[in-house]
Amino acid sequence: MTVFLLGAGPGDADLLTLRAARLLASAQAVVHDRLISPDVLALIDPGAARYDVGKMPGDSRSQGDINELLIELGRTNERVVRLKGGDPFVFGRGGEEAEVLVANGIDVEIVPGITSAFAAPLLAGIPVTHRGLSHGVTVVTGSAVTGSTIDFVSLANPDLTLVVLMGVEQRALIAQQLIEGGLAPSTPVAAVEWASTPRERCVRCSLDELGDTHVEAPAVLVIGLVAALDIGRTRLLASAWALA
Amino acid sequence: MTVFLLGAGPGDADLLTLRAARLLASAQAVVHDRLISPDVLALIDPGAARYDVGKMPGDSRSQGDINELLIELGRTNERVVRLKGGDPFVFGRGGEEAEVLVANGIDVEIVPGITSAFAAPLLAGIPVTHRGLSHGVTVVTGSAVTGSTIDFVSLANPDLTLVVLMGVEQRALIAQQLIEGGLAPSTPVAAVEWASTPRERCVRCSLDELGDTHVEAPAVLVIGLVAALDIGRTRLLASAWALA
Repeated sequence: MTVFLLGAGPGDADLLTLRAARLLASAQAVVHDRLISPDVLALIDPGAARYDVGKMPGDSRSQGDINELLIELGRTNERVVRLKGGDPFVFGRGGEEAEVLVANGIDVEIVPGITSAFAAPLLAGIPVTHRGLSHGVTVVTGSAVTGSTIDFVSLANPDLTLVVLMGVEQRALIAQQLIEGGLAPSTPVAAVEWASTPRERCVRCSLDELGDTHVEAPAVLVIGLVAALDIGRTRLLASAWALA
Repeated sequence: MTVFLLGAGPGDADLLTLRAARLLASAQAVVHDRLISPDVLALIDPGAARYDVGKMPGDSRSQGDINELLIELGRTNERVVRLKGGDPFVFGRGGEEAEVLVANGIDVEIVPGITSAFAAPLLAGIPVTHRGLSHGVTVVTGSAVTGSTIDFVSLANPDLTLVVLMGVEQRALIAQQLIEGGLAPSTPVAAVEWASTPRERCVRCSLDELGDTHVEAPAVLVIGLVAALDIGRTRLLASAWALA
């Protein structure tokens, strides 16, 4: 009677936590999002029931339907896993799903995952903090630009790295607002597409070029002086011995 | 001839990535920080040479000494692991160490870890983002209050969660500056001590009480409306079946 909310990390199964891998291998039912990689799904007990509740564009499945499914599974199984990309409590509405389950008398345990907000820059050789370049990091989503009370003008801070998830579509407006807020047009930007997967690619430009630069979603935008760095050979697939 | 910069996560060995665990088990030499938990160190190949370079207060070992050790080990071993708490590229100077190694002709691969900036609030039942309460999250260290060009006045943003690492000592000044910057004195604060270890404890108060509230280091300060939440039973040690 416990639902485990697991973070699947950015993509590569090698970046799952030991705990997440063990829970997937012994789950009775797994409810997962659309962008979970095949390698991660391969770790699920073959006998477990699987539910892909990924919301495709135009899909009518609502968050309410997902909640109902989790409640029903939680009531009839000992070990249900809700598998979410990245970390369940860094965007992704993990808190809302957990609240609904608890309100329905179902135990919830949250297991952290590697967030793509930090893994994507890392895999592109970019430390989000670095002496002399960045004293901290802010993480937001692109929806902030239109959907809510904050705008990117107020997020312009040359001392911090800004990481934007789900911001590809709105990147021109985001850049415009950040420049309006005081960031230099020459501020380096890195867009890390498909981080930690075989399709990983890093596109670099300056902030004033971002709107006209081709970026393929899903991508993580890294904005700030550190985005010019490229430290280390960080591709996970590169080293044979560790994967043997 | 590769030095692997590994994130050890917040403490619990169960939160290591699969990749980090595999690298520790096959390393020839491991250079680690002070606060790495015994359970994580137990995963190191018993035949590997181990170097504790943790800087105790008053310790004379400098970053330069650590860099020299890494260069020497990197030149004489195939597989050296530099093990850092949390994530190597989220504070912790991983970028600087990697740059020095690369400049000395040594290959570096960075492996992300779970950062305590997000795991500590999660384990205390706090999602750093949550609909209606927080649109994003900023992570800084307490040293920002004294050491550099940013101050906490400029970080006061009621729409974002603020996570402060290494901020216990400066917590009174941090709170004062945030209130000066416009955060409500009643803003909830959670201080998560020793996250993911058996000593884990969460202290809650309001921002104006923070200076007078006893908090034991190491602790992660979580400041913002989400800090009042307590969702799910998230203690990792609580569930027996998964640890079997």
